[in-house]
Amino acid sequence: MYQPFNPTPRTLMGPGPSNVNPRVLTALARPTIGHLDPEFLRLMDEIKALLQGVFQTGNALTIPISAPGSAGMEACFVNLVSPGDKVIVCQNGVFGSRMAENVKRSGGQVILVEDPWGRAVDPEKLRKALHKHPDADIVAFVHAETSTGVKSDARQLCSLVREAGRLSIVDCVTSLIGCEVAVDDWGADVVYSGTQKCLSCAPGLSPLTMNERAVERIRNREKPISSWFLDLDLVMGYWAEGQARSYHHTAPVNALYGLHESLLIATEEGLQQSWARHHRNHLALRAGLEALGLALIVPENERLPQMNAVSIPTGVDEALVRRQLLQQFNLEIGAGLGALAGKIWRIGLMGYASRAENVLICVSALEAILSQHNANIHRGVAVDAVQAVYDAGQD
Amino acid sequence: MYQPFNPTPRTLMGPGPSNVNPRVLTALARPTIGHLDPEFLRLMDEIKALLQGVFQTGNALTIPISAPGSAGMEACFVNLVSPGDKVIVCQNGVFGSRMAENVKRSGGQVILVEDPWGRAVDPEKLRKALHKHPDADIVAFVHAETSTGVKSDARQLCSLVREAGRLSIVDCVTSLIGCEVAVDDWGADVVYSGTQKCLSCAPGLSPLTMNERAVERIRNREKPISSWFLDLDLVMGYWAEGQARSYHHTAPVNALYGLHESLLIATEEGLQQSWARHHRNHLALRAGLEALGLALIVPENERLPQMNAVSIPTGVDEALVRRQLLQQFNLEIGAGLGALAGKIWRIGLMGYASRAENVLICVSALEAILSQHNANIHRGVAVDAVQAVYDAGQD
Repeated sequence: MYQPFNPTPRTLMGPGPSNVNPRVLTALARPTIGHLDPEFLRLMDEIKALLQGVFQTGNALTIPISAPGSAGMEACFVNLVSPGDKVIVCQNGVFGSRMAENVKRSGGQVILVEDPWGRAVDPEKLRKALHKHPDADIVAFVHAETSTGVKSDARQLCSLVREAGRLSIVDCVTSLIGCEVAVDDWGADVVYSGTQKCLSCAPGLSPLTMNERAVERIRNREKPISSWFLDLDLVMGYWAEGQARSYHHTAPVNALYGLHESLLIATEEGLQQSWARHHRNHLALRAGLEALGLALIVPENERLPQMNAVSIPTGVDEALVRRQLLQQFNLEIGAGLGALAGKIWRIGLMGYASRAENVLICVSALEAILSQHNANIHRGVAVDAVQAVYDAGQD
Repeated sequence: MYQPFNPTPRTLMGPGPSNVNPRVLTALARPTIGHLDPEFLRLMDEIKALLQGVFQTGNALTIPISAPGSAGMEACFVNLVSPGDKVIVCQNGVFGSRMAENVKRSGGQVILVEDPWGRAVDPEKLRKALHKHPDADIVAFVHAETSTGVKSDARQLCSLVREAGRLSIVDCVTSLIGCEVAVDDWGADVVYSGTQKCLSCAPGLSPLTMNERAVERIRNREKPISSWFLDLDLVMGYWAEGQARSYHHTAPVNALYGLHESLLIATEEGLQQSWARHHRNHLALRAGLEALGLALIVPENERLPQMNAVSIPTGVDEALVRRQLLQQFNLEIGAGLGALAGKIWRIGLMGYASRAENVLICVSALEAILSQHNANIHRGVAVDAVQAVYDAGQD
């Protein structure tokens, strides 16, 4: 017979989930009410308004999909891509590849614009692809590549797409709350995110937003969407206000309590303040890692503050280091994926986990463990380097 | 600025969600850990084993889909139905219609076997359809129709399907835990359920189980599945044990804490004991309703103990009654759907909410409110009728 599950509390500095804010955990445990209860309908309306705030958009269609981020991604592609459609996908990591896979599954044809893993999407390559493929209606790219810690210039890319009269789908799973996501200002057409990164909410929901151009494209499509669960025509009805609301599925009530609380927390802190905090802690982490002699693989102006890709010192058993960090210090950092497996660690500083004490424990724990591995690191200087960044910031 | 959401606690006696067991609510709030943490992988293995127990199956593929019950339904159809496949769908309520819709979206052709709303699926009609359509490989039906409170004879239907050499897909969203679901004993091939009914867990997950015949069909299909998120070939890899496990999506960690706890609770009580409790409370509710003069619409041998469809007395504003029950007594009961909208109330006694005190409050509250409506009901006798059932049971 099994026992109740009591997980060991961890410091979550991998690629996500990040640590969930205790206020959100408390919200998850509030009594479940019906998904047609007037109080719950009010909660849905508040969540829509709060999401519009953090996405910086006035889009009426701004809702959470009742499933994890990969379902949010799929919802965008399955609704917008009809069989035969050509879609330009900018690929510079795992999640660009997944976008391409989604296009294929929706019956679309992928035009791949490739950049190296660890580098941003090159706007010049996109410009050429737009020119070469005038019949490609949609352009998809990842704003914050979780697999490499790279931030692409979403504002510039969206503007190229808009100028060319195409429609953009932007993956902001890891960027939202951690750095600027300005949907309307960018002119982005479709943007989706997740809850388990900088929102510091439990994994399982996928906020998305679409403007009228995108909604029109869905309304005008000829072939019905292959998914019933992700059919945004039906989902929109479910999230409509007042009498227009129509039953679709049973909402994940408690998960939405958590999302509401995390959106409140983000709104209370303020977006600018949150981005500044993520940036400050990133600088402190970087200083500590560099003092140890470890290098970030992404060029400085393409780095995501919330996701840091670090070269593994030669001769070190990277999986063993991660196991030891977890066992000795309850600290989780992430491994590399795909082309970068075995070459990098991914250190997240997302949302509630983006904190000075987490920077300090990560740098100190790496120093302690790597010393045991006889890695060629500098000892005794990292903590001071971290502190110096915070001291400078307080001037 | 919005405030933290503190829902008014309700007694949930609608069609679901039902009241979530307080132990499950507590589990939801435990600290989030990584979805690759060894402790979390152990949790996944325990959930699979516990699900096998409640489904009464040895099927290796027995997992929760990371999205609500309607996604679980879609996962079954999108994986098993290829374009052009003929599927017999037995339809006797809303969820049979949704199954038919799923077949169509997967590119399949629906052979509809219709029974009236409020009646069980007629095995004779299925037998004839199987004979008439030897090329229909799959038969889908709903064991427990939540929209009407009807239980069909799953054992007999599965056995007809098996004898005819076809494959069965059975919706057990509302039946699991509340009445017998015996996957292996029935010879059912594919069964899915939900968490928000008799499991008394928060809504948002969909447990499903498939035998080797069904898995083989998925492995042998020619056209790739249109959904990436629900591709069971990938999902199976994610839930595989040991080295075979491969990353798919980020699991809804805290929701799975809740599911684990609810499965523990069900296992501690015992399936037989749980079915007996649901039956006893159903008899007490029925006695109370009949004492008031209200009638259940489903014939006695086709009734679901956990979902009771009750005729609305003539001349009563049924929506107003439900609003008053909610406002005055924090009691939620359900409205009718589709063909039965405005004609019935749906009173659930599911999982944690299947309790003597809930039977009593429901019957008493209906008496109090219907008296205000000048409905033609018998007053002053219902409470005794309820108590008499419990007294008889205690002899």
